[in-house]
Amino acid sequence: MTNPLTHFDQHGQAHMVDIGEKAETHRIAIASGHISMLPATLALIQSGTSKKGDVLGIARIAAIQAAKKTSDLIPLCHPIFLTRIAVSFDVDEALSSINCTVTTETYGKTGVEMEALTAVSACLLTIYDMCKAVDRGMVIADIKLLEKQGGKSGHWIAEK
Amino acid sequence: MTNPLTHFDQHGQAHMVDIGEKAETHRIAIASGHISMLPATLALIQSGTSKKGDVLGIARIAAIQAAKKTSDLIPLCHPIFLTRIAVSFDVDEALSSINCTVTTETYGKTGVEMEALTAVSACLLTIYDMCKAVDRGMVIADIKLLEKQGGKSGHWIAEK
Amino acid sequence: MTNPLTHFDQHGQAHMVDIGEKAETHRIAIASGHISMLPATLALIQSGTSKKGDVLGIARIAAIQAAKKTSDLIPLCHPIFLTRIAVSFDVDEALSSINCTVTTETYGKTGVEMEALTAVSACLLTIYDMCKAVDRGMVIADIKLLEKQGGKSGHWIAEK
Amino acid sequence: MTNPLTHFDQHGQAHMVDIGEKAETHRIAIASGHISMLPATLALIQSGTSKKGDVLGIARIAAIQAAKKTSDLIPLCHPIFLTRIAVSFDVDEALSSINCTVTTETYGKTGVEMEALTAVSACLLTIYDMCKAVDRGMVIADIKLLEKQGGKSGHWIAEK
Amino acid sequence: MTNPLTHFDQHGQAHMVDIGEKAETHRIAIASGHISMLPATLALIQSGTSKKGDVLGIARIAAIQAAKKTSDLIPLCHPIFLTRIAVSFDVDEALSSINCTVTTETYGKTGVEMEALTAVSACLLTIYDMCKAVDRGMVIADIKLLEKQGGKSGHWIAEK
Amino acid sequence: MTNPLTHFDQHGQAHMVDIGEKAETHRIAIASGHISMLPATLALIQSGTSKKGDVLGIARIAAIQAAKKTSDLIPLCHPIFLTRIAVSFDVDEALSSINCTVTTETYGKTGVEMEALTAVSACLLTIYDMCKAVDRGMVIADIKLLEKQGGKSGHWIAEK
Repeated sequence: MTNPLTHFDQHGQAHMVDIGEKAETHRIAIASGHISMLPATLALIQSGTSKKGDVLGIARIAAIQAAKKTSDLIPLCHPIFLTRIAVSFDVDEALSSINCTVTTETYGKTGVEMEALTAVSACLLTIYDMCKAVDRGMVIADIKLLEKQGGKSGHWIAEK
Repeated sequence: MTNPLTHFDQHGQAHMVDIGEKAETHRIAIASGHISMLPATLALIQSGTSKKGDVLGIARIAAIQAAKKTSDLIPLCHPIFLTRIAVSFDVDEALSSINCTVTTETYGKTGVEMEALTAVSACLLTIYDMCKAVDRGMVIADIKLLEKQGGKSGHWIAEK
Repeated sequence: MTNPLTHFDQHGQAHMVDIGEKAETHRIAIASGHISMLPATLALIQSGTSKKGDVLGIARIAAIQAAKKTSDLIPLCHPIFLTRIAVSFDVDEALSSINCTVTTETYGKTGVEMEALTAVSACLLTIYDMCKAVDRGMVIADIKLLEKQGGKSGHWIAEK
Repeated sequence: MTNPLTHFDQHGQAHMVDIGEKAETHRIAIASGHISMLPATLALIQSGTSKKGDVLGIARIAAIQAAKKTSDLIPLCHPIFLTRIAVSFDVDEALSSINCTVTTETYGKTGVEMEALTAVSACLLTIYDMCKAVDRGMVIADIKLLEKQGGKSGHWIAEK
Repeated sequence: MTNPLTHFDQHGQAHMVDIGEKAETHRIAIASGHISMLPATLALIQSGTSKKGDVLGIARIAAIQAAKKTSDLIPLCHPIFLTRIAVSFDVDEALSSINCTVTTETYGKTGVEMEALTAVSACLLTIYDMCKAVDRGMVIADIKLLEKQGGKSGHWIAEK
Repeated sequence: MTNPLTHFDQHGQAHMVDIGEKAETHRIAIASGHISMLPATLALIQSGTSKKGDVLGIARIAAIQAAKKTSDLIPLCHPIFLTRIAVSFDVDEALSSINCTVTTETYGKTGVEMEALTAVSACLLTIYDMCKAVDRGMVIADIKLLEKQGGKSGHWIAEK
């Protein structure tokens, strides 16, 4: 009987799953998450592109670099050659939060969901780090996969 | 005029803040977060310590290793000699979620909040990775600092 | 005259060998090694899957992560996309030792022996680390390649 | 009841042990190990300092760099500021093997045994890598701690 | 007879020098370097803080992160806890070049020159990377130590 | 309107460029740079292959390892499977400098210029590190791309 958790074999031992026989297809993943903060903190970040320091520009770089480190951070992830990483931000002033969305792509034997999710996490942690001097109570939430294409499981879109 | 966002200088340029003159004190940080999933996924994880594979044991190792990589992941973090990392889990069956709490400690010139928060994030991402074959819609949320001791700002506890 | 040590050119200068023209084939390597310890230490490890802590589960993760870092640790190794890493343990109670066997696979231009050997080494070092508080005299031995498939040299099996 | 395996708490959960209260002392560790090979391989290595490539010089660098990566490779190791790493080789022509001995030092709260053992392992793996084109059957053995100074446990020397 | 090149012992073997007995002092290093380019490339970079992308902001982050990786990149460097990293830029329109200056600081047993020099190099390489699509002939030059304080050798300033 | 700096999108936001549709071709890059020093320092290095320590041998290893870390150092670089790295040195006694040339190759979707340039930089920094005890005023200069083959832009050779 195979284990429903594919990262374990039939004896419950962890392994890095055999993907040797999987097809090399174009794979895309989109993930997002947000960080909530005090309105005054949000205002500081929004003024950042002018004089006070570009919080989101630095968080974007942290996201891109973290995506490339995914297989080092997540023990059972395969190393993957990402062919694209893109990061975008949306500010929700009503909720006083910043949303980060990351798209990752590859042409390979396994999906890039973990790369997108890891990038989102590093991005939001970096925003926390840069603003914690003024707002220690920020909360990171709603990190999730939005969409995934390629591979055997085809096109998957998260339910709203 | 100093910048309220201390990771930037008065011209808005990012720097790794000078902590040379700060006191070496015993510093502790506690952070937490959770991942929500289908009840069937939670049941698989809970059965894991017996035969199907120890998801939480592996996620705990991912947390500990990520804490040690914090200054590599978060661009403006100082390298820190952590003297302790502890990870604990609570299962909330009513909400079908697993909560992860990480405590980090050091004796040094700067705090260890980012190390605790980074460990929580890597822990929850690892749970996602190991269960995504059965539940792609899991959501990571409520990553936040709970408590912090040591340094100039003293003892801080998050409001409930 | 070519150098029999292929990691050096004809002038004795180290290089990362040109594998550009090699065929992409399915490559497999199997390596093993063991660690000898006091019988009381072995008993502690064997009781570990229940209550005292899962030494072998953590050593398995260390093995998998080390395999992915091989080209960072071994100066002249090529980076490789591993498609599978599996780790198994055998306990030899008569010799009071634990044997670790690692299988690595890829579809690529160069072999994965170093990845398997590096994983075995990290695995045994991790067992040492986790048990050194009770048994500083443990000895790691017999780290060797057992078998290798794929590439120009074909199927190789170690003599017993 | 405390766990005899200190890397686990009383519930058997892995943690990075609290060393905050330990004294900062001068700590030294010496570890060694060897690699056995065909006499012809040994002869190639020995001729290496002249024209065919300096296998041992490269293996020494691999050892030094691996010592610095120990806390990244061994999951529950603390990061440590090594103040010295030295690597020496002895050739045993009778046994057709090369012995590697590594000394590591720090002034800190925890020992440097794992750093010495990790350096020895990386050193011998690098020798294997550089000679495997001519001798795939080399065997790495006898990796062990020889001596340890500093800290609560004082001066320890391995029995012969 | 001691070796004038301190990274080698009296037999010419590389080691990571023993700094255990050195005093922990406040150490500062300042290094700089520049990259020359076509005037049109410089104009693109200068317009970058507005709309076309912030080349220098990203290069600054690369510099800070590289400083933290110095002991991983330079084989015989000691790991160091940097307490400050600051990066500044000067544009020389007459020479059509951008100069990068990095200051690194620590309180420790060894100097931080290599950290400053490594940061300058990574910074200039990142500028090259981001502009190479329009100007492949850029040249990086004049990477050197400007000043150094702390430690036995005291205050050193480069001759002009 | 596309951005002439391809590492930024049309809004000036950094991204890791989409290379998914690019052809996998044989790609080669050659870069070089030099380090100037006192004649006495050069003499020490030149005597190094005999007794005083092999500075250039270690710098060559640093170059090879740095090439493999390029996508970790340069934020917007893609991870690349290098298939060859070769490093050579020329001594210019008249100018009292050492020139380092690095060739990198891959079969892939993007070029390897940054890998060659990063290797040159790490190589020259390592020479600086090993000789700084006797010559703090060494200067690294003239780091540039010499030649590039493969990909859409074809064969490019630097003007003299």
